[in-house]
Amino acid sequence: MKEETTTLHSSLRTIEWKDNKLVMIDQTKLPNELVFVEFTDYNDVANAIRTLVVRGAPAIGVSGAFGLALAALQSKSMTKEELIEDLEKARKILFETRPTAVNLKWGLEKIMKVANEGDNVNEIKELVVQTAKKMAEDDVKINMAMGKHGSELFNDNDTIMTHCNAGALATVAYGTALGVIRATKESGKKIKVIATETRPVQQGSRLTAFELKHDGIDVTLIPDTAVGYTMAQGLVNKVIVGADRILRTGHVYNKIGTYQVATMAKQHGIPFYVAAPLSTFDLQSNPEDVIIEQRNGSEVTGIGDKKTAPDGINVINPAFDMTPPELISGIITEKGIAKAPFGESIKKLFEAN
Amino acid sequence: MKEETTTLHSSLRTIEWKDNKLVMIDQTKLPNELVFVEFTDYNDVANAIRTLVVRGAPAIGVSGAFGLALAALQSKSMTKEELIEDLEKARKILFETRPTAVNLKWGLEKIMKVANEGDNVNEIKELVVQTAKKMAEDDVKINMAMGKHGSELFNDNDTIMTHCNAGALATVAYGTALGVIRATKESGKKIKVIATETRPVQQGSRLTAFELKHDGIDVTLIPDTAVGYTMAQGLVNKVIVGADRILRTGHVYNKIGTYQVATMAKQHGIPFYVAAPLSTFDLQSNPEDVIIEQRNGSEVTGIGDKKTAPDGINVINPAFDMTPPELISGIITEKGIAKAPFGESIKKLFEAN
Repeated sequence: MKEETTTLHSSLRTIEWKDNKLVMIDQTKLPNELVFVEFTDYNDVANAIRTLVVRGAPAIGVSGAFGLALAALQSKSMTKEELIEDLEKARKILFETRPTAVNLKWGLEKIMKVANEGDNVNEIKELVVQTAKKMAEDDVKINMAMGKHGSELFNDNDTIMTHCNAGALATVAYGTALGVIRATKESGKKIKVIATETRPVQQGSRLTAFELKHDGIDVTLIPDTAVGYTMAQGLVNKVIVGADRILRTGHVYNKIGTYQVATMAKQHGIPFYVAAPLSTFDLQSNPEDVIIEQRNGSEVTGIGDKKTAPDGINVINPAFDMTPPELISGIITEKGIAKAPFGESIKKLFEAN
Repeated sequence: MKEETTTLHSSLRTIEWKDNKLVMIDQTKLPNELVFVEFTDYNDVANAIRTLVVRGAPAIGVSGAFGLALAALQSKSMTKEELIEDLEKARKILFETRPTAVNLKWGLEKIMKVANEGDNVNEIKELVVQTAKKMAEDDVKINMAMGKHGSELFNDNDTIMTHCNAGALATVAYGTALGVIRATKESGKKIKVIATETRPVQQGSRLTAFELKHDGIDVTLIPDTAVGYTMAQGLVNKVIVGADRILRTGHVYNKIGTYQVATMAKQHGIPFYVAAPLSTFDLQSNPEDVIIEQRNGSEVTGIGDKKTAPDGINVINPAFDMTPPELISGIITEKGIAKAPFGESIKKLFEAN
């Protein structure tokens, strides 16, 4: 059934559970090589999240859950208490890999809850693995539901700009923002995509351009500096991006650069949409509570072995920025589309849940 | 005297005339190697302009003029008419290297005018070389005058964002926007600089970060995607950039990405300044007349040998964009600062000229 799902939704399956092993695409090798890596140790999964072998908020939520599934299988404990202790240790290590995306916390907590409900070691191991597998399948279903809702916002002959990668490669399969783009195309509308390069890690050129080309969707790459130019030239009708965290007020945390793409869209009267599952929402935090992950300056001072800046230079390299609700035309979820005023609209989506 | 000038203004001299040869820094080798290249053939100068060995509007204006000086020395013609014909041929080849910066046209026309005024072959050769040398010296003087005017706009403890490289490396020496930054520092004010990487050619990381660090000015590098973030965090007080062409209406053509930096500055109430000599102004053209140079997609799909996008991908790679006058707080020139309404203010600068 897994095979069928993969074929149906997209030929790319980013995360898969096979014979008690976790199999993931090594995204650091893209677009040059499509390599699948097997994991049997949760410590390696934590490292994979940290080093962007797997990235994208929904994908790291599910890979965190599978990390705990591996931790459960790895555990030699004979009692429930010892197993929970082992899982708690693994949860901490997995959680500390990346601080901004809320899906990781969500995925880990969901598994810990289920683990605590189990009666004995074998039952817990079984429950944890099955729950993680179900989360992966649900992720694909959620993305397809999101695609269905979102595709209604897009018209025949639209050219849609996207930033970073909120695609199959950011989820288990199909994607959030790119899922909406896939669904729009599947609904029979002709569309084109403009992908920003998304420096410094280049998820736009390495991943989005790769996966859209792979699926036969018309895609054009631009440097991040050309967002304003392409909009001013009338080359963009709509923008859609993913999210790493969304607050109850509609503040959206997403890949660095999203805020300026949204600002330029507003300036040019271009609708700016966000696509994210409900698991991306953080209904508790306020903007001042959210920690923006600061990554190593070496991501900016070179690419691979190629040095592009002088040695010992100061760097500011935040992974995310915040887009305020007034720049957002709509937030597409699996339960429908939230619109301004976002406070009310988001609340309703969760009440319907 | 040349040596002294270099030491006084900045330790970097981008363009120099030595023993009837043109010596330029090969900017494609920066920041890894500081290499000086000698030119004796104007065709090689044209190629150097085309391949960004030398870049920056004022620098290509002067290197175009020196290209014609080399063409004059290379010419074996015995009559004025034949020499003018040779120069005309060289002018065309040099002019067609890059279409957007107006300084190149200005530099070439200035030399052709002088050449036409000469009476005989020897006199023309002498006039052409001396005029090109004077243009180089004037460029430095103009930059220092611009620095003096501009430095009054900046305060102690300002953090100034700049985009691309409008520095010593974009001129003969000292720089336009970075000349203002140098003059501000020389006036005793403490300042810090935030340099954007400036994809795809990375003039910000390769050149601006290099030359400011070289001169001991505090500089921090950010990816182009972090412009909005750093402004939203209150880390930027002012912005200053150079220009490749400025219209009589105050429309500024500058490195791709300038428009969105200016938009973000406006959004955050941060003054946005442009520094450029009068030779950068094009008082004839309207915005619809200006050709935006489109460069090869390979600049965006990889860095050096490192491929960062799938093969055969569509790319939009404009070298410049247009910033409308309503986003600009002031245009700093060697004759003073133009402010809104720019039409009148620019006219006055030229009347005073």
